[in-house]
Amino acid sequence: MRYKVPKKYQDEIELLKKEVYEANLKLVDYKLVIHTWGNVSGITRDRKFMVIKPSGVSYDKLSYHDMVITDLENNIYDSKYKPSVDAPTHTLLYKANPDMKGIVHTHSKHAVAFAQAGKDIPCFGTTHADNFYGSVPCARALTPAEIDSEYEHNTGLVILETFKNRNLDFKATPATLVKEHGPFAWSFKSPLDAVNMALTLETVAEMAINTLIVSNSDSHQAQDALITRHYLRKHGKNATYGQEKH
Amino acid sequence: MRYKVPKKYQDEIELLKKEVYEANLKLVDYKLVIHTWGNVSGITRDRKFMVIKPSGVSYDKLSYHDMVITDLENNIYDSKYKPSVDAPTHTLLYKANPDMKGIVHTHSKHAVAFAQAGKDIPCFGTTHADNFYGSVPCARALTPAEIDSEYEHNTGLVILETFKNRNLDFKATPATLVKEHGPFAWSFKSPLDAVNMALTLETVAEMAINTLIVSNSDSHQAQDALITRHYLRKHGKNATYGQEKH
Amino acid sequence: MRYKVPKKYQDEIELLKKEVYEANLKLVDYKLVIHTWGNVSGITRDRKFMVIKPSGVSYDKLSYHDMVITDLENNIYDSKYKPSVDAPTHTLLYKANPDMKGIVHTHSKHAVAFAQAGKDIPCFGTTHADNFYGSVPCARALTPAEIDSEYEHNTGLVILETFKNRNLDFKATPATLVKEHGPFAWSFKSPLDAVNMALTLETVAEMAINTLIVSNSDSHQAQDALITRHYLRKHGKNATYGQEKH
Amino acid sequence: MRYKVPKKYQDEIELLKKEVYEANLKLVDYKLVIHTWGNVSGITRDRKFMVIKPSGVSYDKLSYHDMVITDLENNIYDSKYKPSVDAPTHTLLYKANPDMKGIVHTHSKHAVAFAQAGKDIPCFGTTHADNFYGSVPCARALTPAEIDSEYEHNTGLVILETFKNRNLDFKATPATLVKEHGPFAWSFKSPLDAVNMALTLETVAEMAINTLIVSNSDSHQAQDALITRHYLRKHGKNATYGQEKH
Repeated sequence: MRYKVPKKYQDEIELLKKEVYEANLKLVDYKLVIHTWGNVSGITRDRKFMVIKPSGVSYDKLSYHDMVITDLENNIYDSKYKPSVDAPTHTLLYKANPDMKGIVHTHSKHAVAFAQAGKDIPCFGTTHADNFYGSVPCARALTPAEIDSEYEHNTGLVILETFKNRNLDFKATPATLVKEHGPFAWSFKSPLDAVNMALTLETVAEMAINTLIVSNSDSHQAQDALITRHYLRKHGKNATYGQEKH
Repeated sequence: MRYKVPKKYQDEIELLKKEVYEANLKLVDYKLVIHTWGNVSGITRDRKFMVIKPSGVSYDKLSYHDMVITDLENNIYDSKYKPSVDAPTHTLLYKANPDMKGIVHTHSKHAVAFAQAGKDIPCFGTTHADNFYGSVPCARALTPAEIDSEYEHNTGLVILETFKNRNLDFKATPATLVKEHGPFAWSFKSPLDAVNMALTLETVAEMAINTLIVSNSDSHQAQDALITRHYLRKHGKNATYGQEKH
Repeated sequence: MRYKVPKKYQDEIELLKKEVYEANLKLVDYKLVIHTWGNVSGITRDRKFMVIKPSGVSYDKLSYHDMVITDLENNIYDSKYKPSVDAPTHTLLYKANPDMKGIVHTHSKHAVAFAQAGKDIPCFGTTHADNFYGSVPCARALTPAEIDSEYEHNTGLVILETFKNRNLDFKATPATLVKEHGPFAWSFKSPLDAVNMALTLETVAEMAINTLIVSNSDSHQAQDALITRHYLRKHGKNATYGQEKH
Repeated sequence: MRYKVPKKYQDEIELLKKEVYEANLKLVDYKLVIHTWGNVSGITRDRKFMVIKPSGVSYDKLSYHDMVITDLENNIYDSKYKPSVDAPTHTLLYKANPDMKGIVHTHSKHAVAFAQAGKDIPCFGTTHADNFYGSVPCARALTPAEIDSEYEHNTGLVILETFKNRNLDFKATPATLVKEHGPFAWSFKSPLDAVNMALTLETVAEMAINTLIVSNSDSHQAQDALITRHYLRKHGKNATYGQEKH
């Protein structure tokens, strides 16, 4: 049985569906997902209704009409499709954060690596610090009991637990990893801004992996004669590279 | 001497050639192969005929007419070209799996790395577990005697041996690696679905390599003063980054 | 309060704005930045005025009219927007180098990794030596006191300190890293040439990370029988791969 | 003073210039070079004249008329530009290999890494063995004396020395690395085929780096409960992912 959206919401939800649809397509443009992976949601101003990508429909067949409407208790309204299986994680985060405007879940390749390794993404520098105030936390793995009952709801609960236990602010840390799973990111502005944050997270994670390689390696140099020869072959008054300047 | 396809198969095979051709082109779109590398096959409903990419013809010169028809004993039918050298591996997998609908072999860069290292792709998280029930196995290396006689047929045999010895289900584990060689993937739906699985495999392999780097590295953090300065330069009431909001 | 550009500079600055704008767009083409990250500047012939990207405006909304004009004391002239927050680093470098013509700051993914690891990019070979005469230095981290007062100006000061202490020539070493932050590059020809140098730097940094992986790894080989079989399957008089030559 | 090409060569050289020009452009398409880096050459049938890319001219400004003609003693004929600085390496390889038809030098990012680490690219598997019969050798570094006199000629000499000392066949091993420098590849068919070999080499080098990471890492697995939950969430009769099949 599916519920009906009250008439007064229809204009707002029509716009929200377009916004959520466009934000979902950005996941593909940004190469944060392949196939049908990933999902973005948005929420109505009074927080009665969430709009989210349908489950398992490929991006190239998606239209904005296919976006699914639920309430925050995960009841489905007036929708052709079932919502993303991750919808209960989204609704829990919206309920815990009355100003949150968009949520995104991806399987982006470098952020997932930290989740799979069960490690925070450390704040290695300013690219990270411009966007996240400290490490991006990796929430603990779910227990077998949590996995076997209301898995997606419990995924939301471990995120809330992590932010509470580590005294983190959802605004200053607008993303998290779930261990053995992957990243969630969000925004207090819009669904599209949440997707931009997911791209930032992926970029910061990629830089962090590069940083780990550099930090954990021993190094050497090429020989001086070669360095000098090559530099002077292209530069200085006896350069042989390139054409004479006319 | 080449055999003739009975007339009653011609419509089905014409469609299958188009389907197999389109699936082969996806290998290039997905960047799973370069040059003439890789091959995709499909099979007729009654499993009498396999259609596969010709050997050594480059993708930009390929038309669907060039697809090669064989039976499961590797006899060639009505074809301008020789089939992929890997055809005997495909036919053996089809014979062992009466519901299998498509097979693909690639040299994708991250899956090949696990094959060359002779290691399974471990199930590090949900991206993997959504698609493969446990590790993607790496079949043992062929012996010199196996390499020197019916090499491609023996490649199929070591895959079958691996799935039997490790009690794996071809449906729940729709891909394998062959040691010192590379990945094979398959589908019980269609040749195109097999190619999608090969992309999934490559993505999971890339994430696994990133995970190995993170898991095997020691880490550190940037200094607190910098983190705070950069975060507050962009956020909060004294932010200096960006333009005033109007 | 914003200052007015004297009339005699207007033609030169109009051209410089176009040049700086085009150079900024190249940052996106070259994949050296995402979102609003990064900035490029140029300078008038008499070094009275700098033109630089505005702060926090996304590249796809930018027009050349939006470029910001400042003097080398960081006063803003006739501009709709605030300049990049990094402008005081640029002006300090221009003042210290009376021939410098363009400066660029990026968050490119491999150069940032060396900055975040706090290491120079070693000169591993000729690709590097063709462009940089020796290591690309990583300037020391700023102290908390330097971070808390005139941070961007102090960033320029640690760059100058590094070049002075290590006796480096800004022409022979046209880029630097700032620890826990990222790269700056410059040119004595033009803003566009500075961006080309930033791409060179990123490429050299990526090669250096690959080099570290190879240098720090133990290796092995595939078995001889396989190597011989595969090589001869494609080459020599008994090759089975590909089609007969007609 | 520049020499004149005898009239009887003009048709052949006109065609060769087009062929060499097209092959050079492929370096950019294949992302094997940036800026003006890299060079491809070809040779006339009687091996009197080599055609090669000019030095330091950017690819987007290049026309086929700009290709430079030399003989195998490095004399320049009828050309607007100077040849690539690496021309003496090319001519030496052509002289030592009377059937060689094209040579290419790139700074591709993964092949360069092995050169900078001073290591052969090991034959890790069939992707490599299909193309190179054994390791791709890394020639020794040049001595300071070799660097300081006829550097590019001496680069060719150390390649010849490597192939002689290690008893390698230029046909079975159609590429080499020069230590602290980068890769050269060649073909006994055409300049374009040499570029295809340079792409193969780069791909094999990238796979080898991925293989080194996997071989040198310790591993783990995600927990069983999660693997089972996620696999069954998408597959089997109680799957919740995706839409009901109609």
